[in-house]
Amino acid sequence: MTTQLDREEIRRKRIESLLAECMARHGIDLWLVYTRESSIDPLGQDVGLGRVVARGAGLFAHRQGRLVRKALVASYDTDPVEATGIFDEVVAYRKEGIAPHLRREVEALDPRCIGLNISRDVPVADGLSHGMRLHLEEILGPELCARFVSAEELVVSFRGRKLEEELAAMRTSVDIAQRAVASAMTSKVVRPGKTREIDVAEHLKRFVEAEGASVAFNIVMVGPCRGHGDPTDRVIEPGDLLRIDFGCFLEGYCSDIQRTAYLLRPGEAGPPASVARLFEVTLRACRTGIEALRPGARGREVDQVARSVITGAGYEEYPHATGHPIGLEAHEVGPTLGPPWKERYGTSVEQVIEPGMVFAVEPAAYVDLPECGGVVQVGIEEDVEVTRSGPRVLGTPQTELILLPS
Amino acid sequence: MTTQLDREEIRRKRIESLLAECMARHGIDLWLVYTRESSIDPLGQDVGLGRVVARGAGLFAHRQGRLVRKALVASYDTDPVEATGIFDEVVAYRKEGIAPHLRREVEALDPRCIGLNISRDVPVADGLSHGMRLHLEEILGPELCARFVSAEELVVSFRGRKLEEELAAMRTSVDIAQRAVASAMTSKVVRPGKTREIDVAEHLKRFVEAEGASVAFNIVMVGPCRGHGDPTDRVIEPGDLLRIDFGCFLEGYCSDIQRTAYLLRPGEAGPPASVARLFEVTLRACRTGIEALRPGARGREVDQVARSVITGAGYEEYPHATGHPIGLEAHEVGPTLGPPWKERYGTSVEQVIEPGMVFAVEPAAYVDLPECGGVVQVGIEEDVEVTRSGPRVLGTPQTELILLPS
Repeated sequence: MTTQLDREEIRRKRIESLLAECMARHGIDLWLVYTRESSIDPLGQDVGLGRVVARGAGLFAHRQGRLVRKALVASYDTDPVEATGIFDEVVAYRKEGIAPHLRREVEALDPRCIGLNISRDVPVADGLSHGMRLHLEEILGPELCARFVSAEELVVSFRGRKLEEELAAMRTSVDIAQRAVASAMTSKVVRPGKTREIDVAEHLKRFVEAEGASVAFNIVMVGPCRGHGDPTDRVIEPGDLLRIDFGCFLEGYCSDIQRTAYLLRPGEAGPPASVARLFEVTLRACRTGIEALRPGARGREVDQVARSVITGAGYEEYPHATGHPIGLEAHEVGPTLGPPWKERYGTSVEQVIEPGMVFAVEPAAYVDLPECGGVVQVGIEEDVEVTRSGPRVLGTPQTELILLPS
Repeated sequence: MTTQLDREEIRRKRIESLLAECMARHGIDLWLVYTRESSIDPLGQDVGLGRVVARGAGLFAHRQGRLVRKALVASYDTDPVEATGIFDEVVAYRKEGIAPHLRREVEALDPRCIGLNISRDVPVADGLSHGMRLHLEEILGPELCARFVSAEELVVSFRGRKLEEELAAMRTSVDIAQRAVASAMTSKVVRPGKTREIDVAEHLKRFVEAEGASVAFNIVMVGPCRGHGDPTDRVIEPGDLLRIDFGCFLEGYCSDIQRTAYLLRPGEAGPPASVARLFEVTLRACRTGIEALRPGARGREVDQVARSVITGAGYEEYPHATGHPIGLEAHEVGPTLGPPWKERYGTSVEQVIEPGMVFAVEPAAYVDLPECGGVVQVGIEEDVEVTRSGPRVLGTPQTELILLPS
């Protein structure tokens, strides 16, 4: 099942096939990725600086249709950087530090516009720390600093889209997660009155590890909603809604799905009408959101159509986004499928959906159902690839509430 | 061997026993840890925000000898934050976002001085991204922003020192790493002409994993220095210097040691005189550095005495620091034991050594020895705990060059 990705090869190919076009499209002459000791810039590894121990810089300059690629790293950091094959030149600094080299290189390139990893609303595009931003000012002086802009849009286009090889790995990651959850939501694993949340979580972990994947997150929950809480030793009982929100990493690529089951009470043939309705509305909201995932749409437009299914059914709107991009992280760069709550999501909901992006879609209604012990939700979350012609749901979507016997 | 640390308990205890004193000592009324989605602030977990998915804030205010501890997190992030037991109060925000809550709390506390995680020279103390710093300005306005200071010194004292339980875990981590390397540097594992660098690295990995630890880094190198390069399929030959720079994580605590062996050529009873001298000088530099690790000393003072042993022997000075703090990362917060190269190490070499800090000490000479194929070094690196009465070397230090038969 595993596809044996060569991740260094993928990174090189991404830079060669995507970066120049992204820079031209967003008007950035120089993308300066400036990382620090124990780097916290999540883009460091994407541009070949993932193994750098001391302060380092990646300079990507787009000049006359050609991409110039230089790295500046400490003398003892050159080997792994050269080995990436990403850079035309790797400059080593010694005790003089990175500053004189960085100043000289930037002055020589004389870019009109320097993109930095600074963003209010896109975490992965915000890897430049404030201390490092101050250091850049100290190194480059006010005149060059006046040319700084946020590289946010470049980062969204560059990292948000996936190559075909990466999409293949993501499909496999989703397939493993779906099979894991399907195998957990059976009467073999869930024995009402005996099985605890943590037992189900343990089953999921073992399942994906046997497939060569690792757990990204593992939420198993019965009874009233507890947000992103850990699985507990709460025993699963008849009448419970069992919700699993689970994802795994396969070769670095993350899946993120949710499935919900109802534990039949003795004598019941189906769920209470309130639960059935909650499932039906949530499913409709999810499908509506998926259908809207088309190139050119904005994140907030997808959110709007899914959200209005929930509110149109008379439920209260949910206090979070309808979905988010997935990829190298459970929350990948790219448009947030969320409402225009400026304080919360800023400009990320205005970003435009592009082919090659992958999203997790998870609208929900939180409803107080006394028969379920409080405020519950039905979790349905699907992973969806955006193609030129529209959405493509990965794996097999949930279409019916899973019923488990008592 | 494992000590079964409860890490949540340790974090709570650290805040209760160390934080108020650090804040008073460094004159910070409010320490504001502001983390973002997919948080990149390495201090997030230390203050109970490690499991937060959306934007969050930890407010630690020192007022009249009492520590006020509040968290502001998204409504679906409250459970794991409450479970840490660190906070007096956990405030949940919904679609209005974190801004109005943060503004209200900071205005109510009305601190004279607000410490933020911003640092030029201490990576762990520089977790506030530039985008988030701009967002704080948007939220709090210019008057409160004028009270911002770097929390660097607070962070160094707070996180740099280890509690007794943590020191116990570090001792075990060092012990495992030392036993792993000792077991690798034997004629059973290293068969000249057959064994490759990667075979030794694989042995080290298996060893520590069998002990319940995981590899932090794993450098196995023969022949000329290649900095932080990966182990290759280069075969180990008679006449080689074999250097291992290895560390493991045990319960989150990192070790970092180096050991060096010489592969005897047929007929040799000992190493060439040039190698023996290189070993002797390096060992003396290491011991001299360790001896200087005393409370109240500055990082650069320790570097100076170790460095002068190398240069005093006529070798060129090394292009890096003599050592660095270790702990929750291979490069922990705390004084860099380095030279006053401002561009490179900034103010981190001026920081003062305190009891409870742990350091890796690794002075070196890089010497061109034709009989060893080029520029080589002898790696000796020891982990040292600082106590009130002086240095305490962890485990068993290397005292002689290890000789392996051909």
